[in-house]
Amino acid sequence: MTINKNTRFLIIGLGLLGGSYAGGLTGKGYYVEAITKEEKDAEYALEHKLVQKAATTIDETMIKSADVIIFTLYPGTFVQWIEENGRLIKPGTIVTDVTGVKGCIVEKIQKLLPPMVEFISAHPMAGKESSGITNSDERIFYGMNYLVVPTDRNTDEGIEACKRIGEILGFGKISEISPETHDKMIGFVSQLTHCIAVALMNCYEHASLERYTADSFRDLTRIAKINEKMWSELFLDNKEALLEEMELFQSQLEKMHTYLKNEDRQGLMDMMITSTERRRLFDK
Amino acid sequence: MTINKNTRFLIIGLGLLGGSYAGGLTGKGYYVEAITKEEKDAEYALEHKLVQKAATTIDETMIKSADVIIFTLYPGTFVQWIEENGRLIKPGTIVTDVTGVKGCIVEKIQKLLPPMVEFISAHPMAGKESSGITNSDERIFYGMNYLVVPTDRNTDEGIEACKRIGEILGFGKISEISPETHDKMIGFVSQLTHCIAVALMNCYEHASLERYTADSFRDLTRIAKINEKMWSELFLDNKEALLEEMELFQSQLEKMHTYLKNEDRQGLMDMMITSTERRRLFDK
Repeated sequence: MTINKNTRFLIIGLGLLGGSYAGGLTGKGYYVEAITKEEKDAEYALEHKLVQKAATTIDETMIKSADVIIFTLYPGTFVQWIEENGRLIKPGTIVTDVTGVKGCIVEKIQKLLPPMVEFISAHPMAGKESSGITNSDERIFYGMNYLVVPTDRNTDEGIEACKRIGEILGFGKISEISPETHDKMIGFVSQLTHCIAVALMNCYEHASLERYTADSFRDLTRIAKINEKMWSELFLDNKEALLEEMELFQSQLEKMHTYLKNEDRQGLMDMMITSTERRRLFDK
Repeated sequence: MTINKNTRFLIIGLGLLGGSYAGGLTGKGYYVEAITKEEKDAEYALEHKLVQKAATTIDETMIKSADVIIFTLYPGTFVQWIEENGRLIKPGTIVTDVTGVKGCIVEKIQKLLPPMVEFISAHPMAGKESSGITNSDERIFYGMNYLVVPTDRNTDEGIEACKRIGEILGFGKISEISPETHDKMIGFVSQLTHCIAVALMNCYEHASLERYTADSFRDLTRIAKINEKMWSELFLDNKEALLEEMELFQSQLEKMHTYLKNEDRQGLMDMMITSTERRRLFDK
């Protein structure tokens, strides 16, 4: 299956990401339908011309006529949906997703789907502190990272189709990564950073703290405004990897604590020199 | 002493902050001179019209004719300068600074200065990842926090003069805070956040990490590019307070680690709800 202007997209779930995918694809001239739970989200999508059609029940015609189905549900809901309705998807359909963890999802979904339906997983690394379709905006994808997460069950064709969706949506860097590497990496660069921000904001109740803050604290805690239902599920789904990354970070922080306690200025400076060199690579 | 258009300012040290102070005051029509160590920094300040006069040795005439002297040196160098040259400062002069720690500085400087010279400490909470006068820019102060840190040796007049400098430079919020509260607060909102960024960047060598990062990681580690000489000195000068803040943060992170390990989803969600509520106050 090659994606072209006749490709029919179906999006399952109209939240922040579902709405942004819909807006991005429709904006580029593609035909997009959606199934979502809440009537108000379906209405919003239609009113704002994010989709051509929207349903709030399992619409078999929609499912059967789709060439590409994009799931933008929480991990648990996604698996449940496939268990209940996966059999309705017609052979030849490409199924993809936006799920933030992969190990617990990818092989399970691949096994659940009917034969000849290819699930190729993706992780669009973009988001917002606010959720829901009313906050959706396809511009959150521009220039960001888009990860394609194949297994040995995937075809070159499926992988290409998945990458093409990332290109259409305007992502900057499109990379392939295995489910295991994905989960370890995401545990570090995304989940651990969210843990840090949450832990920091839990330190003090001090309501007037904001009077004294510098930019550094503001930047570091921006992501402390967090959707607790989604993130607690993502954390638990990536438990082992995240625990390991937390421990690695704690050991580095403990090292700084020891240097400071022992007044080992050189030890502190060496860590700072390392961090400066490594962080500089990001700005290239 | 009231600051008016006849007030003569002397800045000691032309780095990022010294240069930005000079540019800000000169830009508002004030008379500014400077003493700094390096010839090239003095030349830069003169060429860019940041100051009217600049010297690279202890110029007694400059010191004696100043109404306000602003020190923008590292804490240790500042104390040493006052020990060696403090006696040259004429009675009635207001002395202020930009030092990032206060407990180890304020009373010491107040005791070292001649009688009738008032030291009123300040902390402009603004900066950049890059240092030196060539990076100076008075716009870094606009809308930022400016802290005045008096002790019971300070006069209302001195405190007012110090606040006036913050106003002239365009700071947004100007607050008074005691040296002890300052150091505890700064240990948390500034030094601890820098520790976290440095520790994070020390976790992995992985040079291609930047291909996968989301904004959250980028924001969180921006301050990992750090001037190791200055920050190691600031950390050591605020050792006890910073150690305590590190321990408090570690205990919160450990709490999350335990919740995750025990798959206590409610515990994780409660911490996320708290962090979301508290962080929201910052955006008001």
